[in-house]
Parts: sequence; C-alpha cells; structure tokens
Amino acid sequence: MRTLEWDFDRRELRMIDQRLLPAHFEINTYRDYHDVAVAIRDMVVRGAPAIGATAGFGMALAASYSQASSVQDLKAELHQAADLLKVTRPTAVNLAWALQRILSVIEAPFDTVEGLRQQVVVEAVRIAEEDVVINHRMARHGAELILDGETIITHCNTGSLAVVDWGTALGVIRQAHESGKHIKVLVDETRPRLQGSRLTAWELQQYGIPYEIISDGAAGYFLRSGLAQKVFFGADRVAANGDVANKVGSYMLALAAHANDVPVYSVFPTSTVDLSLANGDLIPIEERDEDEVLGIQFHGEPVAPQAAHARNPAFDVTPHHLFTGLVTEKGIVHPPFKENLPRLMKQQ
Amino acid sequence: MRTLEWDFDRRELRMIDQRLLPAHFEINTYRDYHDVAVAIRDMVVRGAPAIGATAGFGMALAASYSQASSVQDLKAELHQAADLLKVTRPTAVNLAWALQRILSVIEAPFDTVEGLRQQVVVEAVRIAEEDVVINHRMARHGAELILDGETIITHCNTGSLAVVDWGTALGVIRQAHESGKHIKVLVDETRPRLQGSRLTAWELQQYGIPYEIISDGAAGYFLRSGLAQKVFFGADRVAANGDVANKVGSYMLALAAHANDVPVYSVFPTSTVDLSLANGDLIPIEERDEDEVLGIQFHGEPVAPQAAHARNPAFDVTPHHLFTGLVTEKGIVHPPFKENLPRLMKQQ
Repeated sequence: MRTLEWDFDRRELRMIDQRLLPAHFEINTYRDYHDVAVAIRDMVVRGAPAIGATAGFGMALAASYSQASSVQDLKAELHQAADLLKVTRPTAVNLAWALQRILSVIEAPFDTVEGLRQQVVVEAVRIAEEDVVINHRMARHGAELILDGETIITHCNTGSLAVVDWGTALGVIRQAHESGKHIKVLVDETRPRLQGSRLTAWELQQYGIPYEIISDGAAGYFLRSGLAQKVFFGADRVAANGDVANKVGSYMLALAAHANDVPVYSVFPTSTVDLSLANGDLIPIEERDEDEVLGIQFHGEPVAPQAAHARNPAFDVTPHHLFTGLVTEKGIVHPPFKENLPRLMKQQ
Repeated sequence: MRTLEWDFDRRELRMIDQRLLPAHFEINTYRDYHDVAVAIRDMVVRGAPAIGATAGFGMALAASYSQASSVQDLKAELHQAADLLKVTRPTAVNLAWALQRILSVIEAPFDTVEGLRQQVVVEAVRIAEEDVVINHRMARHGAELILDGETIITHCNTGSLAVVDWGTALGVIRQAHESGKHIKVLVDETRPRLQGSRLTAWELQQYGIPYEIISDGAAGYFLRSGLAQKVFFGADRVAANGDVANKVGSYMLALAAHANDVPVYSVFPTSTVDLSLANGDLIPIEERDEDEVLGIQFHGEPVAPQAAHARNPAFDVTPHHLFTGLVTEKGIVHPPFKENLPRLMKQQ
C-alpha cells in the first residue's frame, strides 16, 4: 500500500491515516474533494510531495463526480476546487504546484465533459507516478553522500509516508542502507506532532535500519560530541537562493551541524522550489493550533497549566549558507545556490 | 512553602514533589537519607542549587538519626552518607559542593556526638539560607540586563522550584517583572521531562508574568524573526573557561540566539563553577532512562513503535564563546571568561 493510491475502478482516493500510526494502520477512502481538503488540513496526509499528489487527486475527484453538463461549467467547478484545496496548508509549495499543473492541462479546448474528466484524472495519476520516479532519482544521487559506518540525524518524516512512495531525505538514507552501507539513524522526535517518533521510527523499523529516537534538543549534544556525521532533512518550500522552509526545528538542527562541521543536506523534488521568492523570509509560515503543543501528556495527565497558551509555528527557514548541498532529482546542487539552483531548474 | 524546608521540630526534610506538578501539589517528608538519595535520582527535586541544598539536608538526616555512639563512628557514617548522595546525579556540581561543605565542617574535632550532629544540621540550614540570599543577588544583577518591553526565551525550569527559593535565570526574569518592566517569556517546553511546560509555566502563571509555551525546536523561528530579544538559562556545572553544562537543548538555543545576535546569559551561583575542569568537555553528562523520551503520549496512546529505543542525554555543553555574559551572585562576568571567571571566583 502506497501512502496514497487512486482506485480507477471505484474512482476513489485511498490514503493511510497518518494521524493514527504507528498504533493503528487505517485506510481512509475519499470521493469528495471537500473531504480531501479537510484531510490535508487535519494532516491525515502530510509531507510536501504527498500533499501535492493528494491535491491532484482531489482535483480528479472534483472532475469525476461533477454534475456539470458543459465543458465550461466543469472548468469553472475545477477552478473552485483548486481554490479550496490551495488554502488548506500555506507553506508547502507542492500543493500549489500540483494544482497549477492540473489547471494548465484544462486550459486546452475540450469537446466533451468526459474528455476533460479523463484528462484531469490522467494528470493527477501522472503527478503521483512521477513522484515515485523522482524519489528514486533523488535517493540515488543522495545516497552517494553517505559513507559506510556513518550515523545520520534526520528531522520529521521524509519517508514513504511523506511522498507517494519511497521518500526524500529518508529515501536517501534507505537507498544507502539498501546499497549495503552500515548506517545508523538518530531520529529527532520532532515536536509538536512527533512525526519522527511516530512515522520515521515506524518506517525505519520496517526497513531494518538501526535507529534511536532523540529529543529535538539533544541533536546538538550528538553533533558536538562527534557522534553524527551527516544531517539530512526534507523541504516544504525552497526559495530561489536556496533558503529552505521545513518542519520547525530544522533550522536549529542545521545550525548545530554547521557549528560542528557536520554536512547538512536538504532533499526535495524540484517541484518544491519556488523561484518566484528571492529568499526564505518571503515564505509564508503556517502557525497551527496551540493544542498541538499543549496536548502532550506525561504520566497520563496534561502537562501545562490549564490557563497556558502556546505559539506553534509549524515550519522555520534554514538559510542557504548552512547547507553543504541540496539534493534533487536532477542532481546535487552545491554553493553558490543563488546561481546554481535556478540554473539546475532550467535543465530538462 | 519553599521548594524544600527543614523542620527543626520534627527533624525532617519536606519537599514539593515536582514530578506531580502542576496537576498535583504534594509535599513529601523525609527522615532517612537513603530516601533522599532516591528522591534526587528520581527527580522529586531537581535544579542544581536545589539538589545541593537537598543533599545538605540528607546529611542533616544522616546525622540526626544515626545510632552512632562515638564521634568517630558518626563521622564514618556521614562519609558513607555523602558517598551515597554524591552519585545520585553526576552533572550538577552543587551536589558535590554542598556535600564537601558538610564534610569540611565535620573535620574539626568534636567532644560529643550531639555537638557533631548539631554542627551538620546548622551547616545544611546555612547552605539553604545562603542559597536564598544568593538568588536575590543574582536576580538584581541580572535584571539590569532586561529592558522594558522585551521578550525573553528561557529553557527548562530555573525558578523557585530549581532552588531553595526565588530562582536563577527565572529569578532574574521575575526580578525584572517585579521592578515594573513589561516583559514576556517564551518558555521552551524542554523535552524530555517538560520542565518548561510543567514547572516554569506554572511559576510564571503564579507571578502574573505573560508567557507562551513553545516547542524547543521553535526557538530558532522566534529568534530569526526578531521576536525575542534575550535568552536566559541556568547551569548545572560551569567549567573554569566559562563553558556551561545545562539541560539538554540549551546548546542549540544558545547557537540560535548567537546566530541572530540575540544576547545569551547563563545565571548560576558560584557554587556551580568547577574550577578543577579546564573546559566543558570534561563535565560528565548524565544519560537518563530512554523511557523519558519514549513515554510521551499523543491522543492517549504511546507514540513510538514498541520496539523503539532512545538515547537520552540529560545535559549538553554550551561553549563559552556563545555567551554574552555569565550572571552570578558576585556580579556579571564578561568575556574573556577564561580570565574573568576564575578572577571573580577569588573575590570574597
């Protein structure tokens, strides 16, 4: 089972409910794009590439179940659906990117409603299929950077569950493992939603890759002690200069690695790059509900005082100068990123 | 009620059970120093100065309830008690410092067992009383550094609960608030034991100081966004060159502040300084049980896979070059710390 799958026969989207892992493995099915929008917002699915693919299938559902009787009406409905899906999560640009791909396709003239429907479904499937191919390419490029015997720190979840299949940063780690290198992973638990403890640990367990979970704040201890040789994480949006917005805590991890001369890499498909933004300060940072921070339990009881409030930025920006390289499906980008990233984007 | 109190009448030590806060406010009483050792290890009491004072009272209990009939036998028993208490927590040097103060006092000749008993109790009480005076001095020095309108990030708990009364870093913040400055605190939740969410938030609530809780990994976001103007935290052991061992996560917080030109201060009594260690790499770092990391719950269920393991270093070392200043009861030490800290230690 992939993170998300399109069922041609039943014309429905099926997704693993990632909120319940690892305790429960449940598959949700969707036939209404409104429900898909809610699923993205509530993080049934997360991870920038997975969100993009999900939005594509949201459009496929909008097309499949539309009552529109004319091509013009269906196009209008699809634009409405795209508007709704686009605002579910503000930071990951893959969402807007996937929706734009579908909207570009439907700009062409269509003779029949059915033809338009099929074209949308085909494009959504293509986005998902391409994601898998792209992930394997990134993995092969990135795995070269990992040496036998190394310990790698990673943040959040960037494995199969963050994409359609395989993974970005965790895909690189998995590739290194499968190529026979003996590696170990220190997994940031990744507060507040604990995607590291919940999802990355669960994936590593399945792949047979040795790992240990650490508190996010402990990464500095391991980096300063020489107990980790590389840092890999993903990206939710990358600016033209190579600044990377990723799960909150990535910036402090990159700082600690950089201060100890440990190489730091961000791994992402080029669909994550937003060349319209000159730098990372222009990337909108989603602030999520304070309950994600306050809802933690210890000894089965709430931890914070009842009257407490929290701030909960879900992402932060790591400035490009902290990266050793950026790993994409088109190859590894080295500094100066401001020149090399836009150049790579132009390559076919 | 202070964090820990000596009851002269009943000859017993009373301590707030900090593991149960903020949900439950319970006072534990101790008459056996073996139980005090367990209480320190299990973190009924924590915070370097509080641990030191508690160890002192552990010695007072050992003296008070000893069956020894000769001064020589009682002295031998007290050395045994000190050996037991000393190994409960390895990082905070205040523990060894307080025990050494008691052991120095009993080196003098005594005519009666009762005289020796009383001397030990007096010295333990003195350590605790001095701690309160010292805390107020640190607070007055440090509060000068905080400007009206500033937002301060702090890590772990360094308030009343970390000492006998008042606090170190949080004592500074409290002093600034009481002197009429309008300040706000961003409280690192401080994984894995969440002393920020549990204890610091609880204290700030009582003092009426505005605060918000953040994930430890989110501090970098606020520092890079210009939303915090100062960082204050405590210390568990300070090396001769000014390197500071403190609750794990302090190092990454200091790095993020330093990278954004936000001043960083560690606040500690001079009893926390260990001039016998040339630098912070020589400070022993306690690694605690992995269950502190893995025991977290989300939606009422365990988060990590059942087979998961964790690494749990409880402290890390922040190198001195990241500090703007070190706040002690004798004044604020500025760089170069290697020269200025030992010089300050010699002052009466």
